[in-house]
This record gives sequence, C-alpha cells and structure tokens, in this order.
Amino acid sequence: MMPKKAILVILDGLGDLPIDGKTPLQRAKKPNIEKLAREGIQGLLSPLGRGRVPGSDTSHLQLLGYSPEKYYSGRGPLEALGAGIEIKEGDIALRANLATADKNRIIDRRAGRISTEEAKKIEKEIEEVIIRDVKVIFKSTAEHRGVVILRGKNLSDKITDSDPHELGEIKKIIPKEKSKEAEKTAAVLNEYSKKVREILEKSKVNIERKKNSLPVANVILLRSAGTYKKIPSFSERFGIRGACIAGGALYKGVAKYIGLDIINVEGATGTKNTNLKAKAEAARKAIKSYDFLFLHVKATDSFSHDGDYEGKTKFIERIDKELIPPLIDENVALIITGDHSTPCIRKEHSGHEVPILIWAKNERSDALKTFDEFSAMKGGLGHIEGKDLMSIILNIIGKEKKYGS
Amino acid sequence: MMPKKAILVILDGLGDLPIDGKTPLQRAKKPNIEKLAREGIQGLLSPLGRGRVPGSDTSHLQLLGYSPEKYYSGRGPLEALGAGIEIKEGDIALRANLATADKNRIIDRRAGRISTEEAKKIEKEIEEVIIRDVKVIFKSTAEHRGVVILRGKNLSDKITDSDPHELGEIKKIIPKEKSKEAEKTAAVLNEYSKKVREILEKSKVNIERKKNSLPVANVILLRSAGTYKKIPSFSERFGIRGACIAGGALYKGVAKYIGLDIINVEGATGTKNTNLKAKAEAARKAIKSYDFLFLHVKATDSFSHDGDYEGKTKFIERIDKELIPPLIDENVALIITGDHSTPCIRKEHSGHEVPILIWAKNERSDALKTFDEFSAMKGGLGHIEGKDLMSIILNIIGKEKKYGS
Repeated sequence: MMPKKAILVILDGLGDLPIDGKTPLQRAKKPNIEKLAREGIQGLLSPLGRGRVPGSDTSHLQLLGYSPEKYYSGRGPLEALGAGIEIKEGDIALRANLATADKNRIIDRRAGRISTEEAKKIEKEIEEVIIRDVKVIFKSTAEHRGVVILRGKNLSDKITDSDPHELGEIKKIIPKEKSKEAEKTAAVLNEYSKKVREILEKSKVNIERKKNSLPVANVILLRSAGTYKKIPSFSERFGIRGACIAGGALYKGVAKYIGLDIINVEGATGTKNTNLKAKAEAARKAIKSYDFLFLHVKATDSFSHDGDYEGKTKFIERIDKELIPPLIDENVALIITGDHSTPCIRKEHSGHEVPILIWAKNERSDALKTFDEFSAMKGGLGHIEGKDLMSIILNIIGKEKKYGS
Repeated sequence: MMPKKAILVILDGLGDLPIDGKTPLQRAKKPNIEKLAREGIQGLLSPLGRGRVPGSDTSHLQLLGYSPEKYYSGRGPLEALGAGIEIKEGDIALRANLATADKNRIIDRRAGRISTEEAKKIEKEIEEVIIRDVKVIFKSTAEHRGVVILRGKNLSDKITDSDPHELGEIKKIIPKEKSKEAEKTAAVLNEYSKKVREILEKSKVNIERKKNSLPVANVILLRSAGTYKKIPSFSERFGIRGACIAGGALYKGVAKYIGLDIINVEGATGTKNTNLKAKAEAARKAIKSYDFLFLHVKATDSFSHDGDYEGKTKFIERIDKELIPPLIDENVALIITGDHSTPCIRKEHSGHEVPILIWAKNERSDALKTFDEFSAMKGGLGHIEGKDLMSIILNIIGKEKKYGS
C-alpha cells in the first residue's frame, strides 16, 4: 500500500544557476539522493508562481499550504513566535536590531555583533516600556537581534521601518496609510525609540563597552511590522498531525504560526555547522508519532548568499551523506526541495524554479538517474506551483479530501 | 483542414498506479489506441488541479467546461436528472436508499439489494408525501436506489445526511448553517423519514419479504442534498451542439444539467457488462448530427474500486477492440482520458494525474509509441488542468472564441 506519512525536506535556497556549466547540486556527489532519483519522480517547483522571487517567510507559508495572500502579515510575528516569545492576538510585532548610532547616524547596524549575554542584560533594562496606553516589550533573541511587541488598543502594522537597512540616517517611522491606528502606532514607536535611547545611553553594558572601545548598543532599529492573528491550524485544515525540525527562528516561527509542533534538536543551529546527523535522527524518531514532518536546513541558502559555490556543493554532499539516509523508510514519502533558488552568482533569492524530488512506495516514477535543476526539467511532475504542493503530498499519503462525490 | 467535430471519451477512473511495475493501462494490449498514440499528442490531466482528489460529479462538470465552484450544488439534482425525473428550479433533491433498520440501527444499507420491481411498488406507496407545506416526492431508480425531491417554499440544501454511510445509527438530519430555511428543511426531512417508516412497516412488499425471510425495506436513508437551478447551456456557452452517451445515471444527469442531448443506447448499462460495441456504433452515428459528443464508460472505475487489476486490464483491452475503432474518423477529433485516477491498490479516487491522448488530423503530434501514465509524462501537451480542457478541444475543432481582436 501507500506510505501513510511524509517528510518534507526544505533545503533553503537549493536552486541555483550554473557556474562553468554546472550548479552546485549538479556538481555535488550524492549517491543516496541519486538512488532516490532512480526510484522517484521529479519536477520543477515555483513556490509563489513562475518567475516570482519568494521571501523565506512567504514561500514557507505557501509550501505548507498557507497562501501568503491570506495568511501573511509581515515577518515580525513569525520571528517572535520562532524565538519562543509569548505573543497575543492583535499584538504588533517587529524585528529589532541593537545598533550603534552617532547622533542620528547608524555607524554599526549590529552594535559590533554584541554578545547574546550582553544583549540579555540590555533586555532587562528595556523589557517593558509604557508609551501612552501601549505596552512595548523588547525581547533579545541572539546577538544584536531581537523582537519588539506592541500591546494595546487601536494599533496598526501599516507603518514604515526605522531601520535604514544600511549605514546612514535612522528613519522616522511613518504611517503607510491614512488611519488613526497607523498614525498612533508610528507616533508611539518614534517616542519609544527616543525613550529607549535615553535608557541605553546610561546602560551599564554600554559604559563597559565604551571602556573597552567597543561600539555601544545605544539605539534600537525596527523593521517588518506585522499583526499577530490566530489562524486555522494545520491539523484542522488537513486532518493530520504535523511537526517541524528547524534551526532558524523564522522557520520555527512559521511552523508554530500554522500549529505544527516544534521539535528542538540539540546542535540544529540553522548555521553552516548545524548537526545534520542529529536532525536526521530526530526526524526518524519524530515521524513515528506524526503524519507529517517539515525538516528545514538553512545553510544551503547561507552559502549562496555568500556566493560560496564550493561551500554549497560540499554542504549538499554532507546532506546526501548525513541527512538523507536515516530518512529513507518505505512507510514514509520523502519530498526533497527548496523554498526558492539563491544562485551563488547572484547572492540573493531569485525566481528560478527549484528542483523537487518525490520518493514514495507504489508511486509513479520517471526513472531519471540524477537529481538537479536540469534533470528535473525532464521529470514526470512537470512544473508545479507552491499552492499545489500540500495537495500533492496529501494525495500521496491518501489524506487529500475528495471534492464532490 | 481541421476536424470540425470532437468525441470526448471519458474512461472513468482510468489513471492508476503501478503494481509489479506496471499500471493496467500499461499492461493492456491496445493496438488501436497505440496507433492513435503514434499519430496523436499526450499529456497528463489534473481535472480539479494538481493533487486534488475529484468526485465523479465535480470532475465531469469541470471537464465539460463548468467550474464546480460556480455550477455544482450537490449530487442529488444530478442523480435526479440522470434518472429522468422531472425536477423544477428551486427543488431540493437528495439521493435515497431503501434500507433495513432494526429500531434505529441500519443493519442493511441496501435492504438486501431489493429488486427494482419491488422498489417500484414501494415507490407507489410513498410517491408523494406532504409534510407541512412541502411536497416530498420519492422516485425509485434501480434496486435500492432512488431520489427524493422537496418542492416548496423557504427550503435549503445546507443540511446533513440521515444516511450513516455504513452500518449503524440512522442520523438525525441537522442544518449545516443557522438559517430558517436550513432548519425548516432538516425538520421536514426528519418528519418525512418518520412518516415514511410508518408507511413502509405496513407495506405489502415488506410483508411478503418478511415471509420469505428477506431484509425489509423499512426506512429511507437520505444523502447529498442539492438545489436544482437552471444554468446556461453548453450550446449557449460554446456555440456548438453536444450530446452524451453514458450508462450511469450521474453522467447522464451532468449532461442533462448542462444541456447536452442524451442518446440512450440499449445495453449501455454503466456496468462491467456494458455493450461497448453498441455505444461505439451509436457514437459513430450521433457525431454526424452533433459537433461534440461526450462518451462515458464507467467500468474502468468499477474494477478499480474492487481492486481488480486484472479485470481493469482486460476491460481496457475490450475498449481498445470494441469501443475505439468505430470512433476513428479523420473528420472527428478523438480525445481519450479519464475523470480521475482510481488506483487498484487504493480502491478509491486519488489525485494522481490522468493520461490524456488527443488524436486529430493536421494537429501537432509527439509521436510517442504507446499511451499510458508513463508515456504521457513525456507528452507534448505537458500537464493540463480540467478547467482548460474544453478550450483545448474547442481550439482543435476551430470553435474556441477569440479573446480580443
């Protein structure tokens, strides 16, 4: 019979463009993936539609069956959820950077990559600031990174960033629409930024850093405002139990947002040094208690952003050796793909299709011999879009609901 | 020049998954279809979109150019139309089973497959029952099967089934939405079911069956409520004259609903013993007076639901020998496909693509050598969706209207 469970492996930014005639996926030695290719079926996946360049947040929502048009309201809440921060319906969440400013100019967007330990001390000093009738909460996540949450009445996420996204003037937050809510929220955050700066200029952490000639974390930069709302859960919508294994906060955040259980794995860091063996082992165990597992690996994308073709190639070889073999089980459908292409020659996300490989017992196969951007062009799945992926997976494990009778 | 007419052959549940490496369509000897394959063009068809599992009703509507989102309102009215029952705009129609109950428990959902003759006698006893201001009409169709029609004011099809769809407690019909109409309809049908039971307990047919130790048809089980509405006809929408040849009531019902003429063929039963030669002969004649013919064959799906791989294979061989040759005519485009896959190993509809073969004079060809789920992966049509099929067919016969100028 058919497999009753599925593991969706998302290798972030997997798709690439050739350098000297080959992509990293083509160049990589990958005997285990090639065995799956010979028995499975391939295609090319456009997460948000042909040619569209996906963000990591929108793409993951779509691949997991949640149309971003309907369910996406900014990255802030997803980062907050992923960092394990308690967030309530109606809260506005923003990503925050502790940064170094000279007067109104940013001279270091990461405050010299301040340590997580120091950032935690700063968190204590600005943990909760009241502006007008709004409670503003700061939570540090890792190093200079954190999340700011606004809790109060008549707020809106239709506001701009204060983060200039590069060195330069700190921007005044302004409403993106003419509404009392957006005007109030922008004003509250501008007041908040001023108040926080007053506190941070006197912070013990900064006094210490000054002594050691380190850049001070004297301002907070805000970006990606979004309103948190509860949405129908994965199990409600698809009738199956799902879980997530990921290192990066965003991916855990997306998973939590849609109601997947988060399985924390020691050594799963979302970095190039992540422990792939530990993730695979955790996945192999988890799939015994779940119908569906979303397994995320970030480093393929990180190598691409660095333009590190060799590093990406070697990391794919590590995936083939360490991540894939423990996942092979004839009771489990295995889907390997990416959330978008990040070509090494571009160092940023692109709208090129991502190869997808589906391996499942008693399924159709196209008997291709390898798996990459080029073999996938000849695949039996043809071109598929992100909006259809969950139906395709649910159908394979016999869980897609019939429409009509 | 191009062919001016088209025959769309729907082999119900045609698509399959391999057993011992091959699907029934792969295994079947089909020299006539293979001749068409060498001259025609193939692809993979997803009637309701990739991965989606279609019902027979929704799929046929979509393949014939009627989006189910817009035109589907439950199977009841389609079954009623297909059984040749007079139904008026605004009527609510439900599928009905004569069944055997012990107190409130169903012990035989088909009342021992009561004969059509006996059911017709029961029909006389409950032909028309008035509940409040609603006329409730029962029509027997074949054996235990029938249709119930509600005619009256302020009714709604937003109600649940009384049919438990398995052995067990008869369900109380309840409204699916908070509306006076749904509440009234549910209440009327619950009173109706009670009243019918009183009549049936005294039925002469049942007294006779009791004597012969046969299960009595003492209750009526209701399911698949839908409201009948008139919709724009096939000829209005597409500008061509169309007809239908089918055995099963549902398929005739869909055809009648969209305004195709029904051509009744003796021996076209919708069963495994259907007279394929008679259907082919009738089609060959009918296409002389019509532009488009929808020719439906049910048994491929029935074999799949029984998990009968061998039977399905042999039946496809019969189709190749008896159904296809008389349809080959260079003035007629021939389209062979299915309404969904029904893999024998699953015994139920699935969301796997269905192979489609189009053969028409002066058309493009991909020159593949055979026709099945695997050859179709390499087909020149690629992956197509049900919503596009009528345009593809109309284009081939030069009847698709130009958009723009």
